[in-house]
Amino acid sequence: MEVVNPQHLPFELTKEFLEEIKLLIAEQSNEAILAKIEDLFAADITSILDELSGEEAKYIVQLLDTKLAAEIISTLDSDDRKKFLKNFNSKEIAGYINVIDSDDAVDILNEQPVRVREEVIALLKDREQARFIIDLMHYDEDCAGGLMQKELIKINVKQTVTECVEEIRRQAEDVEKVYAVYVVDDDGLLMGTVSLKKIILAKRGSKIQDVFDADGIVSVQTYISGEEVADLMQKYDLEAIPVVNIQGRLLGRITIDDVVDFITESAQEDIQVMAGISEDVEEDDSIWLLVRSRLPWLIGGMVGSFLAAKIIDRFDSSISLMPAISAFIPLIGSTGGNVGIQSSSLIVQSLADKSGLDTTLWKRLQKVLLVALINALIAAAFAFGCSMLVDHGAIMLSVTVSISLFAVVMLASLMGTLTPLVLNQLNINPAVASGPFITTTNDILGYGVYFLIVYLLL
Amino acid sequence: MEVVNPQHLPFELTKEFLEEIKLLIAEQSNEAILAKIEDLFAADITSILDELSGEEAKYIVQLLDTKLAAEIISTLDSDDRKKFLKNFNSKEIAGYINVIDSDDAVDILNEQPVRVREEVIALLKDREQARFIIDLMHYDEDCAGGLMQKELIKINVKQTVTECVEEIRRQAEDVEKVYAVYVVDDDGLLMGTVSLKKIILAKRGSKIQDVFDADGIVSVQTYISGEEVADLMQKYDLEAIPVVNIQGRLLGRITIDDVVDFITESAQEDIQVMAGISEDVEEDDSIWLLVRSRLPWLIGGMVGSFLAAKIIDRFDSSISLMPAISAFIPLIGSTGGNVGIQSSSLIVQSLADKSGLDTTLWKRLQKVLLVALINALIAAAFAFGCSMLVDHGAIMLSVTVSISLFAVVMLASLMGTLTPLVLNQLNINPAVASGPFITTTNDILGYGVYFLIVYLLL
Repeated sequence: MEVVNPQHLPFELTKEFLEEIKLLIAEQSNEAILAKIEDLFAADITSILDELSGEEAKYIVQLLDTKLAAEIISTLDSDDRKKFLKNFNSKEIAGYINVIDSDDAVDILNEQPVRVREEVIALLKDREQARFIIDLMHYDEDCAGGLMQKELIKINVKQTVTECVEEIRRQAEDVEKVYAVYVVDDDGLLMGTVSLKKIILAKRGSKIQDVFDADGIVSVQTYISGEEVADLMQKYDLEAIPVVNIQGRLLGRITIDDVVDFITESAQEDIQVMAGISEDVEEDDSIWLLVRSRLPWLIGGMVGSFLAAKIIDRFDSSISLMPAISAFIPLIGSTGGNVGIQSSSLIVQSLADKSGLDTTLWKRLQKVLLVALINALIAAAFAFGCSMLVDHGAIMLSVTVSISLFAVVMLASLMGTLTPLVLNQLNINPAVASGPFITTTNDILGYGVYFLIVYLLL
Repeated sequence: MEVVNPQHLPFELTKEFLEEIKLLIAEQSNEAILAKIEDLFAADITSILDELSGEEAKYIVQLLDTKLAAEIISTLDSDDRKKFLKNFNSKEIAGYINVIDSDDAVDILNEQPVRVREEVIALLKDREQARFIIDLMHYDEDCAGGLMQKELIKINVKQTVTECVEEIRRQAEDVEKVYAVYVVDDDGLLMGTVSLKKIILAKRGSKIQDVFDADGIVSVQTYISGEEVADLMQKYDLEAIPVVNIQGRLLGRITIDDVVDFITESAQEDIQVMAGISEDVEEDDSIWLLVRSRLPWLIGGMVGSFLAAKIIDRFDSSISLMPAISAFIPLIGSTGGNVGIQSSSLIVQSLADKSGLDTTLWKRLQKVLLVALINALIAAAFAFGCSMLVDHGAIMLSVTVSISLFAVVMLASLMGTLTPLVLNQLNINPAVASGPFITTTNDILGYGVYFLIVYLLL
């Protein structure tokens, strides 16, 4: 028994390793390449492929056995995979699709042009896999149906533990991670589960109905959203959740690894929305995509600012007489924006947590307004002091700035609270309300309030 | 076999259910209470307790058996738990700590005052649990040592599958989720794992060394950060990862449920940092905490705005002559802020993904500046058109606004790219750079540039 990595520490890709691999590919030293990579995990080989050219990557993948190659393809990032699979014909793709989990197979096929997709399904040797794929294809990818895989082990409640072990043996190849065996009745309705631990400890002849767990299970229906699935699996600490149809018939299962990916992607999406980036982009995407993803909110913000310019322009005679008024425009704008984002992000977070069963809108607003009131008083006092300093004791101007700031903090808190609630009601991601939308809206409102008060007091 | 919830759908807490529970508590109808809740999962009972008073919650917990009660306590949110456990004495707390996983036990004890902590450890009946807790207590809570639990099943490589099954039976109570059995040598060094599936399928008399998996395992050392553990478990689709010391001796394991919680909390933290909230707060925290968490960035932003006011004030004579200059102050400020956040959030994201092995700083900047250049040109052209509209054809002013905006977009992109990279080097969470910090900095820089160009051209 040769131990390559006795401490089992994670593989780290270095530049030297990469140079060596590239050299070996150029020399076509197949055995040397295999010796270097065959003990690595699929995800590690993927990280190597990410740094190679399309042809180099294809060269390596074709050296590996089909199962490992297929696993590597399923760990590639969606954009990279689309490019990479262009190097393969439908028959080659079908060879890989044949041996991977049905949920990954559907993800890969959905990235392909319709013609390739149809060809691959027709060419699949494993007809059960083809049926699984066709079954899964019509679910939306962000709901439970789209996240589930068909691979699972199920057993009729009337069977015995011995038969259950035989079923596990029969499917050992297809179902890599088992966790638990699902128990169904004659109609395929989900009744419960038996954990592998229980199977190990049970007498072989025992009946499933005497050992299975009928209560300790939660299932979801196919139309449940990915967020809800993630919340449930997190709440109940599940590593897999069964998916049923409306009658309760077992259709598939969702495993925690897919849900973890889903959680990470959703969090990243929220952060991008908050940053005013309108498409799902990464730093290494094309220049054009990066430009395009930023323009909508950039232009949107500018339109808002020109509306603000229109408002300010109406007060040009006051500004002409007392130019110091304009010095506080940034204060009004940025404080309104900051307060708006602070308020909305808390609401977005508690909407996501679904906390607060009996928090009525009114109770929520009372609390928000109380916090806003305290902050507004502190901000107004601070602003009074500072503007006295900036303008060497121009009391009326300082009073005006201070009152305006008070109004802006209150208004921005209210907007920051109501906007995500309204968006949520309209089924729009409420995180939009923590982005440039709220800062732009609050800017315009803020300047309106400021110049109104300037007009009234000065 | 009575099936309460035949479709195994998740429990949903309603107001009616809650009213009924409160009534039953007031009536002290213990059996009726138990009948209503004993089939629920711990997490569901927790969601009920969240809506009850401290005394009502204690009443319910004391009706339940110790194991379930302990599980409920470990699913409570940290702040709630601190309050809740004030109702119990050290002996009662020790009774619960006795039966829960060591990692949760340490989390709970770390929330308690030192005196309670010491008393509870001294009062633990299960001395192995006490040893586990003392072992785990000195690790930082955000590293692998702080996330791991001591409960796991391990077997010597020289033993047999039969002995392994006996070991599982012996520890069935203590180790709820097994996943795999860890294989160690005589010195306790981690050699590999055997999955439960393999144990089920192996002949009972087989030797562990003939069936175990020596390659298919990754471990981490105690000092590895929680983020890295999460990345590894996600990369390799693991449901548990073993933790070893520097010699490779097996110390514990981290299970995926704890890592999922960690991922969610980190994402929430980043969003709060971006929103300019300086402490980990939720909507239902106290008014004082909510006020305090917002003040630092609120005041920070205001200080920035007063610096901007100082700059603008120096140009009061120009503004007096041409008040329209001040109408474009919001445009300069908000565009700079928006561009800065867009740029920094992409960098923060790729720092988190650790993507781009050979992306040197220079390559990164080239790309960022190219994207910025295109956006800056589009923004400048748009601004020229709009300011001509706002000011009815004041060409020189429109040229000034347009050039300034170009400079501001370029500068803000550069700042948005460099700031998170610098913060990351300084070991500060780079998400700070996507919050009010970057908007404030870009505001001040932007106004400086704008008025410099005003000074040069007008």
